[in-house]
Amino acid sequence: MATERKLYWGSGSTPAWRVLIALKEKGLEFDSRLIEFSKGEHKSEDILKLNPRGQVPTFVDGDVVVNESLAALLYIQDKYPSPSLLPATVEGRALVYQRLQESSNLQDKATQVILFKMKNADADVPQEKLDAAKNELKYWESYVSEEGFIAGPDFTLADVAAGPFLIAMQRFGATLEDFPKLAKYTETLKARPSVAETSPPHWKGTPGKDWLAAL
Amino acid sequence: MATERKLYWGSGSTPAWRVLIALKEKGLEFDSRLIEFSKGEHKSEDILKLNPRGQVPTFVDGDVVVNESLAALLYIQDKYPSPSLLPATVEGRALVYQRLQESSNLQDKATQVILFKMKNADADVPQEKLDAAKNELKYWESYVSEEGFIAGPDFTLADVAAGPFLIAMQRFGATLEDFPKLAKYTETLKARPSVAETSPPHWKGTPGKDWLAAL
Repeated sequence: MATERKLYWGSGSTPAWRVLIALKEKGLEFDSRLIEFSKGEHKSEDILKLNPRGQVPTFVDGDVVVNESLAALLYIQDKYPSPSLLPATVEGRALVYQRLQESSNLQDKATQVILFKMKNADADVPQEKLDAAKNELKYWESYVSEEGFIAGPDFTLADVAAGPFLIAMQRFGATLEDFPKLAKYTETLKARPSVAETSPPHWKGTPGKDWLAAL
Repeated sequence: MATERKLYWGSGSTPAWRVLIALKEKGLEFDSRLIEFSKGEHKSEDILKLNPRGQVPTFVDGDVVVNESLAALLYIQDKYPSPSLLPATVEGRALVYQRLQESSNLQDKATQVILFKMKNADADVPQEKLDAAKNELKYWESYVSEEGFIAGPDFTLADVAAGPFLIAMQRFGATLEDFPKLAKYTETLKARPSVAETSPPHWKGTPGKDWLAAL
Protein backbone atom coordinates (compact mmCIF):
# COMPACT_ATOMS: atom_id res chain seq x y z
CA MET A 1 0.00 0.00 0.00
CA ALA A 2 1.39 3.36 -0.92
CA THR A 3 1.71 5.74 1.97
CA GLU A 4 2.82 9.32 2.24
CA ARG A 5 4.99 8.37 5.18
CA LYS A 6 8.53 7.46 4.22
CA LEU A 7 11.72 6.84 6.19
CA TYR A 8 15.20 6.60 4.70
CA TRP A 9 17.43 4.79 7.16
CA GLY A 10 20.67 2.84 7.31
CA SER A 11 21.49 -0.36 9.18
CA GLY A 12 23.48 0.60 12.27
CA SER A 13 22.61 4.31 12.17
CA THR A 14 21.57 4.89 15.76
CA PRO A 15 19.84 8.21 15.01
CA ALA A 16 17.74 6.46 12.35
CA TRP A 17 17.02 3.62 14.78
CA ARG A 18 15.41 6.13 17.13
CA VAL A 19 12.87 7.04 14.47
CA LEU A 20 12.16 3.39 13.61
CA ILE A 21 11.41 2.69 17.27
CA ALA A 22 9.11 5.71 17.61
CA LEU A 23 7.13 4.72 14.50
CA LYS A 24 6.74 1.15 15.81
CA GLU A 25 5.65 2.38 19.24
CA LYS A 26 2.97 4.50 17.60
CA GLY A 27 1.90 1.68 15.30
CA LEU A 28 2.48 3.83 12.23
CA GLU A 29 3.03 2.25 8.85
CA PHE A 30 5.61 3.73 6.56
CA ASP A 31 7.48 3.18 3.35
CA SER A 32 10.79 1.77 4.57
CA ARG A 33 13.79 2.82 2.50
CA LEU A 34 16.87 1.00 3.72
CA ILE A 35 19.90 2.65 2.14
CA GLU A 36 23.45 1.34 1.96
CA PHE A 37 26.13 3.66 3.26
CA SER A 38 28.83 1.65 1.45
CA LYS A 39 27.22 2.56 -1.86
CA GLY A 40 26.94 6.22 -0.85
CA GLU A 41 23.17 6.05 -1.03
CA HIS A 42 22.78 8.63 1.76
CA LYS A 43 24.17 11.12 -0.75
CA SER A 44 21.70 10.05 -3.46
CA GLU A 45 19.67 12.64 -5.33
CA ASP A 46 16.47 11.33 -3.70
CA ILE A 47 17.79 12.05 -0.23
CA LEU A 48 19.63 15.28 -1.06
CA LYS A 49 16.38 16.74 -2.40
CA LEU A 50 14.79 16.17 1.00
CA ASN A 51 17.86 16.54 3.19
CA PRO A 52 20.68 18.76 1.89
CA ARG A 53 23.01 17.34 4.54
CA GLY A 54 22.75 13.91 2.89
CA GLN A 55 22.17 11.98 6.09
CA VAL A 56 19.80 9.45 7.56
CA PRO A 57 17.30 9.51 9.04
CA THR A 58 15.42 11.42 6.39
CA PHE A 59 11.78 11.29 7.36
CA VAL A 60 8.83 12.39 5.26
CA ASP A 61 5.24 12.55 6.49
CA GLY A 62 3.02 14.08 3.85
CA ASP A 63 4.25 17.67 3.46
CA VAL A 64 6.50 17.47 6.50
CA VAL A 65 10.19 16.61 6.24
CA VAL A 66 12.12 16.14 9.48
CA ASN A 67 15.69 14.91 9.38
CA GLU A 68 17.14 15.51 12.80
CA SER A 69 16.29 12.37 14.76
CA LEU A 70 15.36 14.15 18.00
CA ALA A 71 13.20 16.56 16.01
CA ALA A 72 11.50 13.58 14.38
CA LEU A 73 10.72 12.13 17.81
CA LEU A 74 9.18 15.40 18.99
CA TYR A 75 7.18 15.71 15.78
CA ILE A 76 5.89 12.12 15.85
CA GLN A 77 4.73 12.56 19.45
CA ASP A 78 3.11 15.91 18.61
CA LYS A 79 1.30 14.66 15.50
CA TYR A 80 0.36 11.21 16.86
CA PRO A 81 -0.08 11.73 20.60
CA SER A 82 -1.56 8.30 21.34
CA PRO A 83 -0.14 6.04 22.69
CA SER A 84 1.86 8.73 24.39
CA LEU A 85 5.63 8.63 24.77
CA LEU A 86 5.54 11.60 27.15
CA PRO A 87 4.44 11.72 30.80
CA ALA A 88 1.12 13.32 31.69
CA THR A 89 2.66 16.02 33.90
CA VAL A 90 4.80 18.94 32.82
CA GLU A 91 7.33 18.02 35.51
CA GLY A 92 7.59 14.53 34.04
CA ARG A 93 7.99 15.94 30.57
CA ALA A 94 10.76 18.27 31.78
CA LEU A 95 12.85 15.22 32.72
CA VAL A 96 12.16 13.58 29.36
CA TYR A 97 13.27 16.73 27.48
CA GLN A 98 16.41 16.87 29.62
CA ARG A 99 17.43 13.24 28.97
CA LEU A 100 16.42 13.44 25.32
CA GLN A 101 18.83 16.31 24.73
CA GLU A 102 21.45 14.85 27.03
CA SER A 103 21.59 11.67 24.96
CA SER A 104 23.73 13.59 22.44
CA ASN A 105 26.55 13.32 24.98
CA LEU A 106 26.37 9.51 24.86
CA GLN A 107 26.60 9.69 21.10
CA ASP A 108 29.53 12.13 21.16
CA LYS A 109 31.62 10.31 23.72
CA ALA A 110 31.14 6.85 22.19
CA THR A 111 31.72 8.19 18.67
CA GLN A 112 35.04 9.74 19.74
CA VAL A 113 36.34 6.28 20.64
CA ILE A 114 34.82 4.51 17.64
CA LEU A 115 36.13 7.07 15.13
CA PHE A 116 39.59 6.85 16.64
CA LYS A 117 39.64 3.07 16.14
CA MET A 118 38.27 3.35 12.62
CA LYS A 119 41.21 5.58 11.72
CA ASN A 120 43.84 3.90 13.90
CA ALA A 121 42.94 0.22 14.03
CA ASP A 122 46.17 -0.88 15.71
CA ALA A 123 46.66 2.00 18.15
CA ASP A 124 45.42 2.21 21.71
CA VAL A 125 42.56 4.61 22.29
CA PRO A 126 43.82 7.66 24.23
CA GLN A 127 42.89 7.26 27.88
CA GLU A 128 41.09 10.62 27.99
CA LYS A 129 38.65 9.47 25.32
CA LEU A 130 37.97 6.23 27.20
CA ASP A 131 37.58 8.12 30.47
CA ALA A 132 35.11 10.54 28.89
CA ALA A 133 32.98 7.66 27.59
CA LYS A 134 33.14 5.85 30.91
CA ASN A 135 32.25 9.01 32.82
CA GLU A 136 29.28 9.50 30.54
CA LEU A 137 28.06 5.98 31.34
CA LYS A 138 28.30 6.85 35.05
CA TYR A 139 25.76 9.61 34.55
CA TRP A 140 23.39 7.27 32.77
CA GLU A 141 23.82 4.55 35.39
CA SER A 142 22.55 7.11 37.90
CA TYR A 143 19.61 8.03 35.65
CA VAL A 144 18.01 4.58 35.42
CA SER A 145 14.91 4.82 37.61
CA GLU A 146 13.82 2.32 40.24
CA GLU A 147 11.01 1.33 37.91
CA GLY A 148 13.48 0.60 35.18
CA PHE A 149 13.26 3.35 32.57
CA ILE A 150 15.38 6.46 32.03
CA ALA A 151 12.83 9.11 32.93
CA GLY A 152 10.53 7.37 35.39
CA PRO A 153 8.16 4.41 35.42
CA ASP A 154 7.18 4.44 31.75
CA PHE A 155 8.92 4.01 28.43
CA THR A 156 9.21 7.52 26.96
CA LEU A 157 10.99 9.51 24.27
CA ALA A 158 13.98 9.59 26.63
CA ASP A 159 14.35 5.82 26.20
CA VAL A 160 13.86 6.11 22.46
CA ALA A 161 16.60 8.74 22.33
CA ALA A 162 19.20 7.11 24.58
CA GLY A 163 18.47 3.39 24.15
CA PRO A 164 19.93 2.84 20.68
CA PHE A 165 23.24 4.40 21.72
CA LEU A 166 23.53 2.25 24.83
CA ILE A 167 22.70 -0.91 22.88
CA ALA A 168 25.14 0.09 20.14
CA MET A 169 27.86 0.59 22.75
CA GLN A 170 27.34 -3.03 23.81
CA ARG A 171 27.55 -4.12 20.19
CA PHE A 172 30.93 -2.34 20.09
CA GLY A 173 32.12 -4.39 23.04
CA ALA A 174 31.13 -2.35 26.10
CA THR A 175 30.52 -4.97 28.80
CA LEU A 176 28.69 -2.55 31.14
CA GLU A 177 30.18 -4.66 33.96
CA ASP A 178 30.58 -1.57 36.13
CA PHE A 179 27.07 -0.40 35.31
CA PRO A 180 24.62 -3.03 36.55
CA LYS A 181 21.53 -0.84 36.18
CA LEU A 182 22.40 0.03 32.61
CA ALA A 183 23.15 -3.62 31.83
CA LYS A 184 19.71 -4.62 33.08
CA TYR A 185 18.10 -1.64 31.35
CA THR A 186 19.53 -2.56 27.95
CA GLU A 187 18.18 -6.11 28.35
CA THR A 188 14.71 -4.67 29.06
CA LEU A 189 15.00 -2.51 25.97
CA LYS A 190 16.23 -5.29 23.71
CA ALA A 191 13.25 -7.44 24.73
CA ARG A 192 10.80 -4.68 23.80
CA PRO A 193 9.13 -5.44 20.45
CA SER A 194 9.62 -1.94 19.00
CA VAL A 195 13.34 -2.23 19.69
CA ALA A 196 13.84 -5.91 18.82
CA GLU A 197 11.99 -5.63 15.51
CA THR A 198 13.99 -2.61 14.39
CA SER A 199 17.42 -3.80 15.49
CA PRO A 200 20.07 -3.19 12.77
CA PRO A 201 19.65 -6.07 10.31
CA HIS A 202 23.36 -6.40 9.57
CA TRP A 203 24.03 -7.16 13.24
CA LYS A 204 22.33 -10.52 12.90
CA GLY A 205 24.90 -13.25 12.51
CA THR A 206 27.90 -10.94 12.31
CA PRO A 207 30.20 -10.19 15.24
CA GLY A 208 30.64 -6.62 16.46
CA LYS A 209 33.92 -4.83 17.05
CA ASP A 210 35.44 -4.74 20.54
CA TRP A 211 36.47 -1.10 20.44
CA LEU A 212 34.57 -0.21 23.59
CA ALA A 213 35.64 -3.32 25.53
CA ALA A 214 37.30 -1.13 28.16
CA LEU A 215 33.90 0.22 29.21
CA MET B 1 11.18 39.21 45.84
CA ALA B 2 12.22 35.64 46.35
CA THR B 3 11.21 33.33 43.57
CA GLU B 4 11.52 29.62 43.08
CA ARG B 5 12.78 30.24 39.58
CA LYS B 6 16.55 30.45 39.30
CA LEU B 7 18.98 30.53 36.39
CA TYR B 8 22.72 30.09 36.67
CA TRP B 9 24.35 31.53 33.58
CA GLY B 10 27.67 32.87 32.35
CA SER B 11 28.41 35.91 30.21
CA GLY B 12 29.11 34.70 26.69
CA SER B 13 27.65 31.21 27.16
CA THR B 14 25.42 30.95 24.11
CA PRO B 15 23.46 27.97 25.48
CA ALA B 16 22.67 29.99 28.62
CA TRP B 17 21.75 32.98 26.46
CA ARG B 18 19.03 30.89 24.82
CA VAL B 19 17.35 30.38 28.18
CA LEU B 20 17.64 34.06 29.12
CA ILE B 21 15.90 35.00 25.87
CA ALA B 22 13.09 32.48 26.38
CA LEU B 23 12.44 33.71 29.93
CA LYS B 24 12.30 37.33 28.71
CA GLU B 25 9.98 36.43 25.83
CA LYS B 26 7.62 34.79 28.31
CA GLY B 27 7.88 37.69 30.74
CA LEU B 28 9.01 35.38 33.54
CA GLU B 29 10.90 36.72 36.51
CA PHE B 30 13.76 34.73 37.92
CA ASP B 31 16.61 34.83 40.34
CA SER B 32 19.56 35.63 38.07
CA ARG B 33 22.82 34.00 39.10
CA LEU B 34 25.62 35.25 36.89
CA ILE B 35 28.66 33.02 37.46
CA GLU B 36 32.26 33.67 36.46
CA PHE B 37 33.90 30.94 34.45
CA SER B 38 37.35 32.35 35.24
CA LYS B 39 36.75 31.66 38.92
CA GLY B 40 35.50 28.14 38.16
CA GLU B 41 32.08 29.00 39.54
CA HIS B 42 30.35 26.62 37.10
CA LYS B 43 31.99 23.84 39.12
CA SER B 44 30.75 25.27 42.43
CA GLU B 45 28.99 23.03 44.93
CA ASP B 46 25.73 24.95 44.38
CA ILE B 47 25.72 24.10 40.69
CA LEU B 48 27.10 20.57 40.99
CA LYS B 49 24.25 19.69 43.34
CA LEU B 50 21.79 20.64 40.62
CA ASN B 51 23.88 19.78 37.57
CA PRO B 52 26.51 17.05 37.96
CA ARG B 53 28.07 18.11 34.66
CA GLY B 54 28.98 21.47 36.19
CA GLN B 55 27.77 23.56 33.29
CA VAL B 56 25.57 26.53 32.59
CA PRO B 57 22.76 26.98 32.00
CA THR B 58 21.51 25.36 35.16
CA PHE B 59 17.84 26.20 35.40
CA VAL B 60 15.57 25.58 38.38
CA ASP B 61 11.82 26.13 38.35
CA GLY B 62 10.32 24.95 41.61
CA ASP B 63 10.93 21.19 41.71
CA VAL B 64 12.08 21.06 38.10
CA VAL B 65 15.75 21.23 37.13
CA VAL B 66 16.59 21.43 33.44
CA ASN B 67 20.18 21.99 32.35
CA GLU B 68 20.31 21.22 28.65
CA SER B 69 19.47 24.52 26.98
CA LEU B 70 17.24 23.04 24.28
CA ALA B 71 15.42 21.01 26.92
CA ALA B 72 14.91 24.20 28.92
CA LEU B 73 13.36 25.87 25.87
CA LEU B 74 10.94 22.97 25.35
CA TYR B 75 10.06 22.95 29.04
CA ILE B 76 9.51 26.71 29.27
CA GLN B 77 7.19 26.60 26.25
CA ASP B 78 5.34 23.58 27.67
CA LYS B 79 4.88 25.04 31.16
CA TYR B 80 4.20 28.64 30.07
CA PRO B 81 2.50 28.33 26.68
CA SER B 82 1.51 31.99 26.35
CA PRO B 83 2.82 33.99 24.54
CA SER B 84 3.65 31.03 22.36
CA LEU B 85 7.04 30.47 20.79
CA LEU B 86 5.65 27.63 18.66
CA PRO B 87 3.44 27.82 15.56
CA ALA B 88 -0.23 26.89 15.83
CA THR B 89 0.00 24.01 13.34
CA VAL B 90 1.81 20.71 13.77
CA GLU B 91 3.47 21.25 10.38
CA GLY B 92 4.81 24.59 11.58
CA ARG B 93 6.05 23.01 14.78
CA ALA B 94 7.81 20.26 12.82
CA LEU B 95 10.01 22.89 11.17
CA VAL B 96 10.74 24.53 14.52
CA TYR B 97 11.80 21.18 16.03
CA GLN B 98 14.00 20.53 13.00
CA ARG B 99 15.82 23.89 13.18
CA LEU B 100 16.02 23.77 16.98
CA GLN B 101 17.93 20.49 16.83
CA GLU B 102 19.90 21.51 13.78
CA SER B 103 21.28 24.56 15.60
CA SER B 104 23.70 22.20 17.35
CA ASN B 105 25.56 22.02 14.04
CA LEU B 106 26.12 25.79 14.09
CA GLN B 107 27.51 25.47 17.58
CA ASP B 108 29.76 22.53 16.67
CA LYS B 109 31.23 24.00 13.52
CA ALA B 110 31.91 27.45 15.01
CA THR B 111 33.33 25.92 18.19
CA GLN B 112 35.78 23.83 16.16
CA VAL B 113 37.33 27.01 14.79
CA ILE B 114 37.22 28.93 18.06
CA LEU B 115 38.76 26.10 20.10
CA PHE B 116 41.55 25.73 17.54
CA LYS B 117 42.44 29.42 17.89
CA MET B 118 42.25 29.29 21.67
CA LYS B 119 44.87 26.53 21.65
CA ASN B 120 46.91 27.77 18.68
CA ALA B 121 46.71 31.55 18.74
CA ASP B 122 49.35 32.09 16.07
CA ALA B 123 48.50 29.25 13.70
CA ASP B 124 46.18 29.39 10.73
CA VAL B 125 42.90 27.56 11.16
CA PRO B 126 42.88 24.38 9.02
CA GLN B 127 40.92 25.06 5.86
CA GLU B 128 38.60 22.11 6.42
CA LYS B 129 37.39 23.59 9.71
CA LEU B 130 36.76 26.96 8.05
CA ASP B 131 35.01 25.28 5.15
CA ALA B 132 32.77 23.31 7.49
CA ALA B 133 31.74 26.49 9.34
CA LYS B 134 31.15 28.33 6.08
CA ASN B 135 29.14 25.46 4.66
CA GLU B 136 27.01 25.45 7.79
CA LEU B 137 26.26 29.14 7.32
CA LYS B 138 25.14 28.36 3.76
CA TYR B 139 22.44 26.10 5.11
CA TRP B 140 21.23 28.79 7.50
CA GLU B 141 21.30 31.46 4.80
CA SER B 142 18.83 29.26 2.91
CA TYR B 143 16.66 28.82 6.01
CA VAL B 144 15.86 32.50 6.64
CA SER B 145 12.25 32.89 5.55
CA GLU B 146 10.84 35.63 3.36
CA GLU B 147 9.16 37.04 6.42
CA GLY B 148 12.48 37.23 8.19
CA PHE B 149 12.60 34.49 10.81
CA ILE B 150 14.17 31.02 10.74
CA ALA B 151 11.03 28.93 10.77
CA GLY B 152 8.43 31.13 9.16
CA PRO B 153 6.75 34.48 9.78
CA ASP B 154 7.02 34.51 13.57
CA PHE B 155 9.77 34.51 16.15
CA THR B 156 9.88 30.95 17.56
CA LEU B 157 12.02 28.59 19.60
CA ALA B 158 14.04 28.04 16.39
CA ASP B 159 15.21 31.66 16.57
CA VAL B 160 15.89 31.36 20.28
CA ALA B 161 18.00 28.26 19.60
CA ALA B 162 19.99 29.46 16.59
CA GLY B 163 20.13 33.24 17.12
CA PRO B 164 22.70 33.41 19.92
CA PHE B 165 25.16 31.30 17.92
CA LEU B 166 24.82 33.46 14.82
CA ILE B 167 25.25 36.65 16.83
CA ALA B 168 28.23 35.14 18.68
CA MET B 169 29.82 34.23 15.36
CA GLN B 170 29.65 37.91 14.40
CA ARG B 171 31.21 38.83 17.74
CA PHE B 172 34.06 36.45 16.80
CA GLY B 173 34.60 38.33 13.57
CA ALA B 174 32.31 36.61 11.05
CA THR B 175 31.37 39.37 8.62
CA LEU B 176 28.48 37.41 7.05
CA GLU B 177 29.35 39.28 3.85
CA ASP B 178 28.46 36.27 1.75
CA PHE B 179 25.23 35.71 3.68
CA PRO B 180 23.05 38.80 3.23
CA LYS B 181 19.89 37.21 4.62
CA LEU B 182 21.69 36.07 7.76
CA ALA B 183 23.30 39.50 8.15
CA LYS B 184 19.88 41.15 8.03
CA TYR B 185 18.40 38.48 10.27
CA THR B 186 20.99 39.00 13.01
CA GLU B 187 20.25 42.74 12.95
CA THR B 188 16.54 42.00 13.42
CA LEU B 189 17.40 39.72 16.32
CA LYS B 190 19.78 42.16 18.00
CA ALA B 191 17.07 44.84 17.91
CA ARG B 192 14.59 42.57 19.66
CA PRO B 193 14.25 43.52 23.35
CA SER B 194 14.53 39.94 24.67
CA VAL B 195 17.83 39.56 22.81
CA ALA B 196 19.24 43.06 23.35
CA GLU B 197 18.53 43.03 27.10
CA THR B 198 20.19 39.65 27.62
CA SER B 199 23.26 40.23 25.44
CA PRO B 200 26.47 39.06 27.18
CA PRO B 201 27.39 41.90 29.57
CA HIS B 202 31.14 41.53 29.06
CA TRP B 203 30.73 42.26 25.34
CA LYS B 204 29.87 45.86 26.10
CA GLY B 205 32.88 48.07 25.57
CA THR B 206 35.30 45.24 24.86
CA PRO B 207 36.38 44.16 21.38
CA GLY B 208 35.72 40.61 20.18
CA LYS B 209 38.27 38.26 18.65
CA ASP B 210 38.54 38.01 14.87
CA TRP B 211 38.87 34.24 14.73
CA LEU B 212 35.93 33.81 12.39
CA ALA B 213 36.87 36.73 10.12
CA ALA B 214 37.16 34.36 7.17
CA LEU B 215 33.42 33.69 7.30
